[in-house]
Amino acid sequence: MEAKFQQHLEQLASQIETHLMAYVRVTPEIQRQAKVMEAMQYSLEAGGKRIRPVLVLEFCRICGGSQEQAMAAACALEMIHTFSLIHDDLPEMDNDDFRRGKPSCHKAFGADVALQAGDAMLVAAFAALIDAPLLTAERKLELLHILAEATGAAGMIGGQIMDMAFERRSDVTLEEQEAMCMAKTGALIRAACRLGCTAAGASKERTALADKYGAKLGLAFQIVDDILDVTSSSDVLGKPVGSDAEEGKTTFLTLLGLKQAQEKAADLTKEAKALLEQFPENAFLLALTDELLCRNK
Amino acid sequence: MEAKFQQHLEQLASQIETHLMAYVRVTPEIQRQAKVMEAMQYSLEAGGKRIRPVLVLEFCRICGGSQEQAMAAACALEMIHTFSLIHDDLPEMDNDDFRRGKPSCHKAFGADVALQAGDAMLVAAFAALIDAPLLTAERKLELLHILAEATGAAGMIGGQIMDMAFERRSDVTLEEQEAMCMAKTGALIRAACRLGCTAAGASKERTALADKYGAKLGLAFQIVDDILDVTSSSDVLGKPVGSDAEEGKTTFLTLLGLKQAQEKAADLTKEAKALLEQFPENAFLLALTDELLCRNK
Repeated sequence: MEAKFQQHLEQLASQIETHLMAYVRVTPEIQRQAKVMEAMQYSLEAGGKRIRPVLVLEFCRICGGSQEQAMAAACALEMIHTFSLIHDDLPEMDNDDFRRGKPSCHKAFGADVALQAGDAMLVAAFAALIDAPLLTAERKLELLHILAEATGAAGMIGGQIMDMAFERRSDVTLEEQEAMCMAKTGALIRAACRLGCTAAGASKERTALADKYGAKLGLAFQIVDDILDVTSSSDVLGKPVGSDAEEGKTTFLTLLGLKQAQEKAADLTKEAKALLEQFPENAFLLALTDELLCRNK
Repeated sequence: MEAKFQQHLEQLASQIETHLMAYVRVTPEIQRQAKVMEAMQYSLEAGGKRIRPVLVLEFCRICGGSQEQAMAAACALEMIHTFSLIHDDLPEMDNDDFRRGKPSCHKAFGADVALQAGDAMLVAAFAALIDAPLLTAERKLELLHILAEATGAAGMIGGQIMDMAFERRSDVTLEEQEAMCMAKTGALIRAACRLGCTAAGASKERTALADKYGAKLGLAFQIVDDILDVTSSSDVLGKPVGSDAEEGKTTFLTLLGLKQAQEKAADLTKEAKALLEQFPENAFLLALTDELLCRNK
């Protein structure tokens, strides 16, 4: 099972990566912009497990849709995620010099190029869906609506804004922390589940179930992240542990304590998996949920 | 005539501004992001003559469409333009502290907020069209395609990228300068004309004529800008004259000399107006063309 799961995950990731690269290819008409295209390729290639696009493809599949129907939405969402990482690393934001062990985009290409690569990536994400094949105009607009809502001031960007504001405060409440995390991490993960269902033409009820799963997965994912920042070793994690505490950041651990945080993550995982039980052919998604929430890095 | 023209221009601008502000209103769900919304409002309010959205509305009107049909596209385009100004002024780009006599967005709100306000504005532009009323799904996708193409790496952002690269060179050719300017300034102006025609459901031939007009207008506009930077006084211009030459920047003036640049601008103006003659009810657009290309500031 485990080997089969890993194999399927890697296969999906590799298919996604092939399609992603096609969106940032340097064509003759944009030869003069080659450097920014290179920066876009660099950041897209440095991707992790491609969780978000994998969720899009999988929810589409279990709702009876084809991979081709969902691929543009999957790639668009991964481009949105990548754009956010590029801009988040910039000096005026988190000022991170490294991303997944490699120099961050602005360290490799300069802040001006990174800013523009992020901007161009955001536009490319929308363009990927606007020009997607195989979908009716109505379907595309539903997908575009989900994408825009999840990305904008009420979604991921909104979450980043809250996060920046919270860093300057020491009295962030659990309710506020959850709202921030639901927007910053949750919005794209929920969107992934909804995009997959919508691409397949699933019912409103089914899409709402997937959305609920995404909300629980997103929140649990962040709590597990906060726990690992304290309990893991930097060898396993690939980045310094305890960095949150050092920066005096509010996390689910500072708000709940280790035991309660662990319980909350376990409860959310259980609830997320229970929601998946209402879908057919859910073995891969159940394994993915465990992989994400019972990880040690 | 002149008074009537100015009155109509101000009326259109005021209608556009009312709609623009509705897109960046702080609703209960985004109360926590109020600061970024405020930054977005600040930059949208600081707008100039609203040339791009006015072109959208006017081309829609003379192609037989209603203002309501074109308003979302007009606002989306102005938001794209405003996003580009916010990011262009950032320290890693042009590092401009002032924009139209007021502190630029990052001076007023900080670079982190300005970066995010630009990002959120770009998303809001697409969302405005995605959620637009009165248009069929097919029509919206046509408009979205024009918007994405004009904004991305092959359009305005591509032009900014070229511009940054050219600043480090002293051997920019006329052909390169024209390509840069056609992308950086021309892409959105051409898109304005195409969006208006498309919103009205105009024929491909008619839309292509409007696009040609936009290309000539955009190029002429930039040449006039370059001329004014040398021949105008800073009192009239509202910014220091001769700043291009001081920075050693390649402009149409350094490439062509004053006399040839003036001739080229005059020729383009004439050609642009000739293209307008093929449209009915063109009095306002003819006057606008003169206003933009025979200006002294």
